[in-house]
Amino acid sequence: MSGDSTLLSELIEALRCLPGVGAKSAQRMAFHLLERDREGGVRLAAVLQQAMRHIGHCKSCRNFSESGECAICANPSRDPASLCVVETPADLLAIEQATGYRGRYFVLMGRLSPLDGLGPSELGVDLLTRRLAEGEVRELVIATNPTVEGEATAHWLGQLARAAGVRATRLAHGVPLGGELEYVDRGTLAHAFGSRHSLDD
Amino acid sequence: MSGDSTLLSELIEALRCLPGVGAKSAQRMAFHLLERDREGGVRLAAVLQQAMRHIGHCKSCRNFSESGECAICANPSRDPASLCVVETPADLLAIEQATGYRGRYFVLMGRLSPLDGLGPSELGVDLLTRRLAEGEVRELVIATNPTVEGEATAHWLGQLARAAGVRATRLAHGVPLGGELEYVDRGTLAHAFGSRHSLDD
Repeated sequence: MSGDSTLLSELIEALRCLPGVGAKSAQRMAFHLLERDREGGVRLAAVLQQAMRHIGHCKSCRNFSESGECAICANPSRDPASLCVVETPADLLAIEQATGYRGRYFVLMGRLSPLDGLGPSELGVDLLTRRLAEGEVRELVIATNPTVEGEATAHWLGQLARAAGVRATRLAHGVPLGGELEYVDRGTLAHAFGSRHSLDD
Repeated sequence: MSGDSTLLSELIEALRCLPGVGAKSAQRMAFHLLERDREGGVRLAAVLQQAMRHIGHCKSCRNFSESGECAICANPSRDPASLCVVETPADLLAIEQATGYRGRYFVLMGRLSPLDGLGPSELGVDLLTRRLAEGEVRELVIATNPTVEGEATAHWLGQLARAAGVRATRLAHGVPLGGELEYVDRGTLAHAFGSRHSLDD
């Protein structure tokens, strides 16, 4: 920024903490806010400060929440017999938006990944075991991602469920709706072919 | 956000004021900050608040500045005889970073664009005329963009300079360095061909 406003260069530098924002985008964002949307910038600053300070984790499901218990866990109309385990809050949101699921959630905030130092204790195994042991949960819906690490995590979750005497289910894998078989990747197609089911089911 | 943390949904909404950030990117940014970079988020909030509140315009050149006069205008080693007119602070930065220009600047904060309600007074014509009339400026470097509106603005600036008895210059147009003629657009190539100059110059 060659001798120019240091506050401006600080702003450009600070914006780079956002994912996918490099030097050029950060500069564009800073100029956009200063030239055209100071109000939006002020609001963002205020909300960001509040959010960073007050958003913690729900004590029952580990999802982000600004109070001790998140809105879903605190909602008495959500079925406590069904517990859906997801890797991230974004996965939870995707399920909430796409499905009519009315049970509760447990957010791992990660997946088993020894190389990144993520083991069972980082994923909240204590809390999950306690919830399974309470006896209220009758089905554990395992909705980890269909990746290598997600599958390993699903396998581990299945063992936890079995140990607690809870039925474990896994999201169906197969060809996505609206796609064309020609363009489906081989692994998915092979899996879908192997898992074909009778139309009379 | 179906009943989830309202502060989180406010944060996602507030992030959308950034240019090029839609619903999905805003969600990704919010989760990234909450999961991995709270410190960066807190710093961004603080800097953003400061910047939105304190960054105004330099009284001599209209560039962004947190004090009354920007660092370039306040720098006595910058040549006051040369004044480079640019459309935006980003253009100023680009020139500062690419060239060895040691004169001063004038930032229009826009270009002549009657349809957007941008006329001479919005571009600071009073201030520019006053600076030209002071007699210190001997060359007005017109560095508006080579677009239709930028060219119209350049023409108008040329007239201002002539009225004040100041020499006006314009950035050279032609084929960009490092490109191949084959891929240069027709307008640029025609201009470069018409403006060919003798190698003996």
